[in-house]
Amino acid sequence: MRGLVSLVGAGPGDPELLTLRAARRLEQAEVVLHDALVAREVLALARNARLVDVGKRAGRASPMQESISRQLVDYARGGARVVRLKGGDPFVLGRGGEELLALSSAGIPWEVVPGISSATGLPALSGIPLTYRGMSSAFLVVSGHSKRTYGPVLGGLPPRSATVVILMGLARREEIAAYLIERGWSPRTPCALLLRGSTPAGSKETATLADWTEASIAPPGPGTLIIGDVVALTRFFVQNELIPTAEEKGVAS
Amino acid sequence: MRGLVSLVGAGPGDPELLTLRAARRLEQAEVVLHDALVAREVLALARNARLVDVGKRAGRASPMQESISRQLVDYARGGARVVRLKGGDPFVLGRGGEELLALSSAGIPWEVVPGISSATGLPALSGIPLTYRGMSSAFLVVSGHSKRTYGPVLGGLPPRSATVVILMGLARREEIAAYLIERGWSPRTPCALLLRGSTPAGSKETATLADWTEASIAPPGPGTLIIGDVVALTRFFVQNELIPTAEEKGVAS
Repeated sequence: MRGLVSLVGAGPGDPELLTLRAARRLEQAEVVLHDALVAREVLALARNARLVDVGKRAGRASPMQESISRQLVDYARGGARVVRLKGGDPFVLGRGGEELLALSSAGIPWEVVPGISSATGLPALSGIPLTYRGMSSAFLVVSGHSKRTYGPVLGGLPPRSATVVILMGLARREEIAAYLIERGWSPRTPCALLLRGSTPAGSKETATLADWTEASIAPPGPGTLIIGDVVALTRFFVQNELIPTAEEKGVAS
Repeated sequence: MRGLVSLVGAGPGDPELLTLRAARRLEQAEVVLHDALVAREVLALARNARLVDVGKRAGRASPMQESISRQLVDYARGGARVVRLKGGDPFVLGRGGEELLALSSAGIPWEVVPGISSATGLPALSGIPLTYRGMSSAFLVVSGHSKRTYGPVLGGLPPRSATVVILMGLARREEIAAYLIERGWSPRTPCALLLRGSTPAGSKETATLADWTEASIAPPGPGTLIIGDVVALTRFFVQNELIPTAEEKGVAS
């Protein structure tokens, strides 16, 4: 539809984890404004579109949010089919709300196409159930960007009352682990560090909060942190055979 | 792949919100064991499969979890391509972990295909950003099934420190609202009730915690509750034009 802006979640990286609607919006798009971290394989689906890299993901480097909103409005007013493509889900620490506000103020019609957030998608791919009957009936997703973002909620959360998922907190896991232990969480609480999203190079490292307080250099790139007893379950989940991703990818493309 | 069990998230109801991988797994499936609440339009994608309804969604009625796990193992041992299809995401209050444990113990290979959970997908479709810079840097997803599930975490969560998303809590919203107010949350905290998933009949009702304490009869069917200041933002988001879902659906199928 002309002049409509679709705010689309790109999911955690693997193009197969786009929704059917997201894939179709990309195919139809004439202009795609995307975060720097959106995978090349996902952008490749936007065959007929002009691709505009609008910078780093929310919370990283300088996203120039106002400039992005202005570009969205300008392209839509020009009558283009515009997709604003954001890693994960547009509303999970993605600043989608700020862009909707700009579009609404300018009288531009919009829709939101939800995506698989790294917060839920990566644990699923890694065999870590965020909830487990009798063990965890809740999970919290929080930005680890600074103590200002995670402090208020982690400071009062009763230990073990929820699985904690931290996005954009890779560089601060030492500080966050120490903060939780200080607040009464057991140093032996199981943790996992999920790196490189849903790509074939994705990895899972399990540890404890105590281990993390001694973590030194953060690996490069985005990472997802999971804290809670459910992490310990993964040792019982034996993925007896690898999924033939190469073959599967051939079918998908 | 024969003998592999794919634990697949069906998303919030609209078949267009399946991932590309989920849609493909359904097309290839020979047996699909699904929750009663999975939408008919989603099941229709499993063209060549025997459909087995294994009962209500986790947390509702009697799911007979052991029987489900046994059936999964039996079908997989028989060499079938098996999909276990669960509403939303398999690991978000979906008991996917229990099924993985059964499969692992039986030596059956498995994979998890994440899905869009109602917890994040319905707010996105309804224009409610779960996080918003300067307003909320975190959200909590919790089962409202009983005070045993929501009490431990909501009892200690500092008021306004996170957006709260409650699944399976429709019948208890009066009780939950009273509990939060008792714990220091403002009676004027904005809330939303999202009904009937992502179907065309989906609806959003906004209110306050105080309104909910007087809520009487729960509407039938599943519902998602959202509590937090971000709900008040939706009044500024004007969706200037409706998306032509009918036409879109024609393209999709």
